[in-house]
Amino acid sequence: MSRVLVVGSVAFDSVETPFGKVEDALGGSALYFSTAASYFTGVDLVAVVGEDFPNEPIDDLKERGVDTAGLQKKAGETFRWKGKYGYDLDDPDTLDTQLNVFGDFHPELPEHYRDAEYVFLANIHPALQIEVLEQVEDPKFVALDTMNFWIDGELDVLKDALSRVDMLVINEGEARQLADDANVVQAAQTIQEMGPELVAIKRGEYGALLFNGDRKFFAPAYPLEEVYDPTGAGDTFAAGMLGFLAGQDSIDAASLRQGAVMGGVMASFCVQDFSVNGVQDLDLDTITGRVDRFERLVDFETIDSLD
Amino acid sequence: MSRVLVVGSVAFDSVETPFGKVEDALGGSALYFSTAASYFTGVDLVAVVGEDFPNEPIDDLKERGVDTAGLQKKAGETFRWKGKYGYDLDDPDTLDTQLNVFGDFHPELPEHYRDAEYVFLANIHPALQIEVLEQVEDPKFVALDTMNFWIDGELDVLKDALSRVDMLVINEGEARQLADDANVVQAAQTIQEMGPELVAIKRGEYGALLFNGDRKFFAPAYPLEEVYDPTGAGDTFAAGMLGFLAGQDSIDAASLRQGAVMGGVMASFCVQDFSVNGVQDLDLDTITGRVDRFERLVDFETIDSLD
Repeated sequence: MSRVLVVGSVAFDSVETPFGKVEDALGGSALYFSTAASYFTGVDLVAVVGEDFPNEPIDDLKERGVDTAGLQKKAGETFRWKGKYGYDLDDPDTLDTQLNVFGDFHPELPEHYRDAEYVFLANIHPALQIEVLEQVEDPKFVALDTMNFWIDGELDVLKDALSRVDMLVINEGEARQLADDANVVQAAQTIQEMGPELVAIKRGEYGALLFNGDRKFFAPAYPLEEVYDPTGAGDTFAAGMLGFLAGQDSIDAASLRQGAVMGGVMASFCVQDFSVNGVQDLDLDTITGRVDRFERLVDFETIDSLD
Repeated sequence: MSRVLVVGSVAFDSVETPFGKVEDALGGSALYFSTAASYFTGVDLVAVVGEDFPNEPIDDLKERGVDTAGLQKKAGETFRWKGKYGYDLDDPDTLDTQLNVFGDFHPELPEHYRDAEYVFLANIHPALQIEVLEQVEDPKFVALDTMNFWIDGELDVLKDALSRVDMLVINEGEARQLADDANVVQAAQTIQEMGPELVAIKRGEYGALLFNGDRKFFAPAYPLEEVYDPTGAGDTFAAGMLGFLAGQDSIDAASLRQGAVMGGVMASFCVQDFSVNGVQDLDLDTITGRVDRFERLVDFETIDSLD
């Protein structure tokens, strides 16, 4: 079993969906990731919060096996994001972003993080993603998330970052944008030529397509009756996948497929509640129970013959 | 082995996509369906064409085992549709629709069609779908396709038709519209209460979700590098599914799942070429080969334990 290192944001989110709202709730990519990955292995967290951030959630993380030595506490306020989702729970409108202490954040890895084998570079400035990689000695598997904001504004730095990682986790629309190709299969191939041999294309409520070299795998999302808040779905997908890989300490083809399924499972828990509530109180039995439901969702007995 | 009866349109389509265009090419829901279903079983075709429709495609259908006794040839011109797809190959813009002989079409089933067991009511006026059902003695399995046009304009008649069928095949957006519910799982449940125990929700390039009572099954679409023309994808999905069910003469849960996979397989061939070209020159080996690729696409070895 290996640990997994994550760098990203820890934030206060104010989120409104047609099904409810929360104000200044716990959020941020690294917090979603740490919480969801903690069921599979230990997590080394790299992030920054302001003086206004309470101790209780940090203590909660520690109890889950999350090492918070890399979580800086700086003078000023914690990163805040405010967004609103429409009826289709698709891309939210960002109503307000206050970078606060995140504005001049530079990740510093504690000495004992530097031999990390599994690394998730959550969606932050690609220059910061590179800063983290340069502090890790010899990682076995590095995954990177990004978004249209960096594709638009920091493409060269992003391409530098991409050339150093094993997997890109990205939304479908952003994959098309990054590759400048409407066809998702061709877009994945173009991105693979930029560096990552693996490309996980997130399709929201449809699941994720995993391109591993020239092999394709589809990890469906479970069709849920009640989806309350999609915030964090991508980060918990990555958490299920990287947490699983690190927990098994394996990146063979079968593990990658199983990891993608585990990612879909964790994302399905995430969207069933606001903030990190959906992934906070799980246990392994509940998680494997949902893996079974995923398996039944796509299981058809082989069609051997049509004659 | 049972035959499958289809009622729908036979048309000339003029289609433009970013990848090419065709003018007055063979099209229409019943033609797509008949061609694609013919690999699995015999097809009884009910439709109408004008005097301008050539004999050659009708002879081709006969050679495939399609009975064209129910294909009326009327004075006037054949139904024509002209559409244009954008870069995302999503919903096309309809540029022109000429109903022509389809305008006063009333399906008349030849005597030897009336003991049909498997019936596909393609996307036509729900009153015509009911006319067909009233001419079939005791069908075993009836599936119906529809669209926003009938949901908007003929909801009462459509609901009457729905109360008489076993399965609705419908686009995701139209399922939401019909059920007035943004959540696709809840929408499927609402539609099931209208009559059909089975609801197959087509999600375009993402595949189809099959709701069978309270069981869910996801038949993915195969991610293709080259998609040229999505016209007919829904009809060939239905053809793969109903053709398979009729060919096996089985509607048990396993057959329904396998049928949905076969639907996805036939749709994947359809969209790789214009008009019916993608489903015209297949054979069972080619089809089962793609079934294997679908199976590998979603196959993950069971995750037995996380301890």
